[in-house]
Amino acid sequence: MKMNAAILWDAHQDWSVEEVELDGPKEGEVLVSFEATGLCHSDHHPRAGDAPAALPVVGGHEGAGIVQEVGPGVTTLKPGDHVVASFLPACGRCRWCSTGQQNLCDMGEFIMKGVMLDGTYRRHAQGRGVGAMSLLGTFAQYGTVAEASLVKIDEDLPLSRACLIGCGVTTGWGSAVNTAKVSPGDTVVVIGCGGIGSGAIQGARIAGAEKIIVVDIVEDKREKAFLFGATHFSTSIAEATELVRELTRGVMADSAILTVGLVEGPMIGEALELVRKGGALVLTALAPFSDITPTLPMSMFTLFQKRLLGSLYGEANPRADIPRLLSLYREGKLLLDETVTTEYKLADVNRGFDDMLAGKNIRGVILHDH
Amino acid sequence: MKMNAAILWDAHQDWSVEEVELDGPKEGEVLVSFEATGLCHSDHHPRAGDAPAALPVVGGHEGAGIVQEVGPGVTTLKPGDHVVASFLPACGRCRWCSTGQQNLCDMGEFIMKGVMLDGTYRRHAQGRGVGAMSLLGTFAQYGTVAEASLVKIDEDLPLSRACLIGCGVTTGWGSAVNTAKVSPGDTVVVIGCGGIGSGAIQGARIAGAEKIIVVDIVEDKREKAFLFGATHFSTSIAEATELVRELTRGVMADSAILTVGLVEGPMIGEALELVRKGGALVLTALAPFSDITPTLPMSMFTLFQKRLLGSLYGEANPRADIPRLLSLYREGKLLLDETVTTEYKLADVNRGFDDMLAGKNIRGVILHDH
Repeated sequence: MKMNAAILWDAHQDWSVEEVELDGPKEGEVLVSFEATGLCHSDHHPRAGDAPAALPVVGGHEGAGIVQEVGPGVTTLKPGDHVVASFLPACGRCRWCSTGQQNLCDMGEFIMKGVMLDGTYRRHAQGRGVGAMSLLGTFAQYGTVAEASLVKIDEDLPLSRACLIGCGVTTGWGSAVNTAKVSPGDTVVVIGCGGIGSGAIQGARIAGAEKIIVVDIVEDKREKAFLFGATHFSTSIAEATELVRELTRGVMADSAILTVGLVEGPMIGEALELVRKGGALVLTALAPFSDITPTLPMSMFTLFQKRLLGSLYGEANPRADIPRLLSLYREGKLLLDETVTTEYKLADVNRGFDDMLAGKNIRGVILHDH
Repeated sequence: MKMNAAILWDAHQDWSVEEVELDGPKEGEVLVSFEATGLCHSDHHPRAGDAPAALPVVGGHEGAGIVQEVGPGVTTLKPGDHVVASFLPACGRCRWCSTGQQNLCDMGEFIMKGVMLDGTYRRHAQGRGVGAMSLLGTFAQYGTVAEASLVKIDEDLPLSRACLIGCGVTTGWGSAVNTAKVSPGDTVVVIGCGGIGSGAIQGARIAGAEKIIVVDIVEDKREKAFLFGATHFSTSIAEATELVRELTRGVMADSAILTVGLVEGPMIGEALELVRKGGALVLTALAPFSDITPTLPMSMFTLFQKRLLGSLYGEANPRADIPRLLSLYREGKLLLDETVTTEYKLADVNRGFDDMLAGKNIRGVILHDH
């Protein structure tokens, strides 16, 4: 079938919205009509040339839609089912899926390869195969994707909001709940108030944090930060450090969560200063694939026992956590509507990224026409 | 009373064994005759000038002895009790002691201040007050120390071995058991086979690790490493990395534990390569207090979810773990005799450190005369 999709042909180019040929589902695959997709910084990294993604690629990895057709061997989905497309697949069978670590599923190694799990393409344009970001390619009206990438959700949930659970919200939420393991009464610092940061703030709030200090260089995000659960807001880590020192009588924060996509080395050392002895600095968000060279006093680790915790997808198990988070949304506890700053058409995808890079959006969402 | 003790008067000098005047116990303090003390790299850092310890100081922080006299208010010890002197005190009342994190006890801030908890000195020489390393000063025939620093042990245990539990062995053991959380069947890499490394190897073995790869630049430690539980030995991290890749079919180690006292920035990045996605690199041993500038690909954290875990005293609770480890020693499961390479007299303390720095010792022990 033919559809419209946004392709990145090469680094440092704009997204090209054009007609793409989509193959139907093979063994273990599903044809989905994408209804909505979030605009996430991770899609920008291949465009900026700082992530090793195979190009050309149909962008987008945070989507929700409706199953149109299932291929042979598909057992968990049928046409008409509503689904969230998870940016990491969960095969359910590897060592990691078998031990409650679906975010580390071995299929994850395919998310930047462009090709599907069998090494071939389902998308074709201008006479050649085109990849799919995260095995999904949600900047498109339709997608043929692996069953492993899809999680069935209840039909009463708006797909224009459910899509956000497929990457950013869950990553942020889990970075607080699963990785930082925020406990009732904790003091938590969240650095960055974007798609992931807003999820982290909410995770900390729902987990019972007493004080949530949010740092974002964009002063305009202050109001939204408080809406999500911040108790304090600052535009600099240095200022936040003094604030935390005062609030905790010198003990410092139980944890800090770094959710920004552009991390410089010195930021790691600064952020480690925010946390108490035995405390954790969580590193989440897909940063550029370049090296960082943080300056770290060894005593932070060996005398003050601080921890630097990487977190992928918030250590979430998509098959369990996507329905769980959507249930919290339905109950009004997890705010999603408030994270959506602007809605776009697919044709506006480049403007959407411009807005994101200008710090105008908590999250932008593309609503697809069919 | 008068006694012999080894004092460090200034950085870059030798230990000076001389007569020291020792005051008796004040409120909450205990006079102990030290019978034995281990030689630990941490005592060398103030001598090398790379730790902010107040000088002059009576060295030594890994000791065992017999209670001679108790001051007012001491309730848990009486003359004749055998004790291990813990390099970190545990008050039993602060936030950390109250939550099973005695290694983070707030009294710990005194371990390099020289003075006792009330801010005054119990040791005097050449007309001035002299501090006590870690509130202990075990390079001495006697010590007046806080009750909080002493843990009572059974009298059948040899003090010449029990002393090792007060710092290095427990730090190593706990870095594997408590921080790396080694599970049965794990693959673990231990870098450094000294006082801490030998404890880490044994912790990993007793916790059921299947493969324990030990790295030490001193080839002579190979045999001892296998005795403690190593299944493989290498003299370089690079070689160990290839070995681990082969042994785990590319998955890499569940955890790696860096136990050496001299850490250079690049070693952190190299050691992180040893561990699998979701795996942990534990940083233990008191390194110099200087900064390190490791080169770290951010993707190690945000894509492969690796963790850099500082560990102080192996996250041990000295009041629970010191008797526990000594019980394992008595049962023949925890090897201590085999960690002691050489026994010294106090007068030989400088030779003992020379041997340690030359890589000749797993652990040297000073036996005190009285």
